[in-house]
Amino acid sequence: MSTQPDTDFLSRAEGISYPNFSFDISYKDPKSRARLGRLETPHGGLDTPNFIFCGTKASIKGLHPQQVKDAGADIILANTYHLMIQPGADIIEKMGGLHKFMNWSGPILTDSGGFQIYSMGEGVNADEIKCRNNKSNRKPSLNKITEEGATFRSYKDGSKLFLSPESAMEIQRKLGADFVVQLDECTAMHVSEQYTEDSMHMSHRWGDRSLKAFDEKHNGKQAVYSVVQGGIFQNLREESAAFSASRPFFGTALGGTFGGNFDQFFEIVSWCVPHIAPDRPVHLLGIGTFRDIFQCVRLGIDTFDCVSPTRVARHGWALMKGAPNERLNLLNAKYKTDQDPLWPELGIAASSQYSKAYIHHLFKAKESLGGQIVAQHNVAVMSLLMTEIRQAIKDETLDQLEKEWIPS
Amino acid sequence: MSTQPDTDFLSRAEGISYPNFSFDISYKDPKSRARLGRLETPHGGLDTPNFIFCGTKASIKGLHPQQVKDAGADIILANTYHLMIQPGADIIEKMGGLHKFMNWSGPILTDSGGFQIYSMGEGVNADEIKCRNNKSNRKPSLNKITEEGATFRSYKDGSKLFLSPESAMEIQRKLGADFVVQLDECTAMHVSEQYTEDSMHMSHRWGDRSLKAFDEKHNGKQAVYSVVQGGIFQNLREESAAFSASRPFFGTALGGTFGGNFDQFFEIVSWCVPHIAPDRPVHLLGIGTFRDIFQCVRLGIDTFDCVSPTRVARHGWALMKGAPNERLNLLNAKYKTDQDPLWPELGIAASSQYSKAYIHHLFKAKESLGGQIVAQHNVAVMSLLMTEIRQAIKDETLDQLEKEWIPS
Repeated sequence: MSTQPDTDFLSRAEGISYPNFSFDISYKDPKSRARLGRLETPHGGLDTPNFIFCGTKASIKGLHPQQVKDAGADIILANTYHLMIQPGADIIEKMGGLHKFMNWSGPILTDSGGFQIYSMGEGVNADEIKCRNNKSNRKPSLNKITEEGATFRSYKDGSKLFLSPESAMEIQRKLGADFVVQLDECTAMHVSEQYTEDSMHMSHRWGDRSLKAFDEKHNGKQAVYSVVQGGIFQNLREESAAFSASRPFFGTALGGTFGGNFDQFFEIVSWCVPHIAPDRPVHLLGIGTFRDIFQCVRLGIDTFDCVSPTRVARHGWALMKGAPNERLNLLNAKYKTDQDPLWPELGIAASSQYSKAYIHHLFKAKESLGGQIVAQHNVAVMSLLMTEIRQAIKDETLDQLEKEWIPS
Repeated sequence: MSTQPDTDFLSRAEGISYPNFSFDISYKDPKSRARLGRLETPHGGLDTPNFIFCGTKASIKGLHPQQVKDAGADIILANTYHLMIQPGADIIEKMGGLHKFMNWSGPILTDSGGFQIYSMGEGVNADEIKCRNNKSNRKPSLNKITEEGATFRSYKDGSKLFLSPESAMEIQRKLGADFVVQLDECTAMHVSEQYTEDSMHMSHRWGDRSLKAFDEKHNGKQAVYSVVQGGIFQNLREESAAFSASRPFFGTALGGTFGGNFDQFFEIVSWCVPHIAPDRPVHLLGIGTFRDIFQCVRLGIDTFDCVSPTRVARHGWALMKGAPNERLNLLNAKYKTDQDPLWPELGIAASSQYSKAYIHHLFKAKESLGGQIVAQHNVAVMSLLMTEIRQAIKDETLDQLEKEWIPS
């Protein structure tokens, strides 16, 4: 297979059209880059800024799709890396695609697999990329990355697998999500500038190969996002953002490491945004605290995704407007006899029909219903956050809203 | 505390009245003891024969109460033994009782704790009592049983606990279920006739003490069941059934061992039924296969309970009318690309909106939604079974219905 892309149409940003997709910006905040938009897909539309909930293996942990919808979610994502291994893209295609397979009729995004191959391969880098300090004992499963693609081992049975920009597109075509993402190499913070630059250039070439593969089987049902890399280096981030803008991607995703602390994170995002295509939707990969979202909405980010709302639910952490650390820890003994529900106004059973005492009991008794209740609550809280952010952009009250969600 | 009951009112079957409860038998099968009944409680009524779904720790494993209700369940049970340890009866009382605590507005039954103390204490006897051949490595936690009551260790923290007939009633009063059960010693098959007889007589004395304790705080909100013991010995079973009938219990539960195989099981149940009070509801503790239910409905059993519908769901076993072994094993590779849902006519999302292929995938991917889907399906199947059994009793087509559910 040739690794030299046909650059004829790829060198023009308008080289691929997406007739069944649109992104319309209806309002721009005069004081920041924050904006209101509307994304339309063959599976319906959504207002932006918005949050994409993670259904890694074609399931939002412990929730029926209807419960996810009832909690206000508009769009979800699934992971190419996990699904190519279990159940496999061919099976999902045969079953009519992800929407039908998992019974979610709204928009879906699939990532390219690049992040998981890297983070699961190296074990520690997912935490590093997300500015966490956890140590992981996960065994590296990445074999090698070459110009051709990434060779890695299945997390399931250890078998050898290969993902190229072309096969990542092919797999995502079979999965059938509305939004797909180019394959990239996700670099971590500890690597050198030279490595980061070389890798970024390869990710750009992979971007072109992804576009070409996408275009060859373009059926109007999918739209493809670039990934901006460049690590913690301003010149590389700017170059990568500009490269993305020069290519006919539908949307722009910001990926890779965002540094070692939150200030650096915001700085890196702010380097990218002036150079990306201003009229395309911008997705920030894997970021999801209230604080991150407020700050990045101001930088012009349109969509976010993060596993944390459903992951922390399994630890008994209920996201809460105005709470210290943005959450209540329902395992705390003070909830043992707390008769109050989590948040009745959210309008779902999870947040209104169970006392904190009962949810506390379910966690203490190791009953899975506890995690299910908190997961749906957390989806509802994130959905409300995004709804209120959209209203606040319109009302120019974003600073005030941020103080309500994150009191200092 | 005196262990000599006041037998003045206890020796008359009409010695306690249950003004807010009723059991009316509307139809008797001319060919068997099968009957149609209506049980009324302060939390609504239910038609019998019916199935009581197990919410051991105040949660039906992985299901919201509304999902249990949507699946057709009329009544659930919770376990005194588990709840007295976590969260404790005082907390549930403070939270307004079990119905409010777990958000289930229909009838609830709590058992007395006797079975769990015994089965968890001995480790193996739960299997023996249920005619299973499993070996358990569970560490015995029962200290001793005396005339006064049972001393045992908490499964949670090893602390020493004591349960007497009086405290079992007091705890169940605090839990606030509609139906409560006397404390009994649950004897296994391997013990001698002498031990079984002595134990049975103690259980009878415990029954009287339970009734006395119940009567002292009788608030009209609860009704109490006896437990018939006597092991595998016909004379003892008959004596125990007759003793129950002589005392002012609201209902009769059949407990203890039912022998080593299914023929012996049916024989033991059939020894009891001619001697129990014919106008009281009869509950068979811990039994729940299709075959057991058909057979025992013919013996006059009105209600059943068993953890199996929700327990086997977690192993990917979907109960199914007419299937070999009464179920499909969704982990089987043949379901990998099976587009069909489990049973659309059941009218719930779990049985109609997900393909077997998707559920198979969820189990393979270790996604908890798989177990949740099958658990709700299994509740719906058991509920349908009971509905069809009631109709068949009325139509005198029970034999025909049994062949549909369990083809030979």
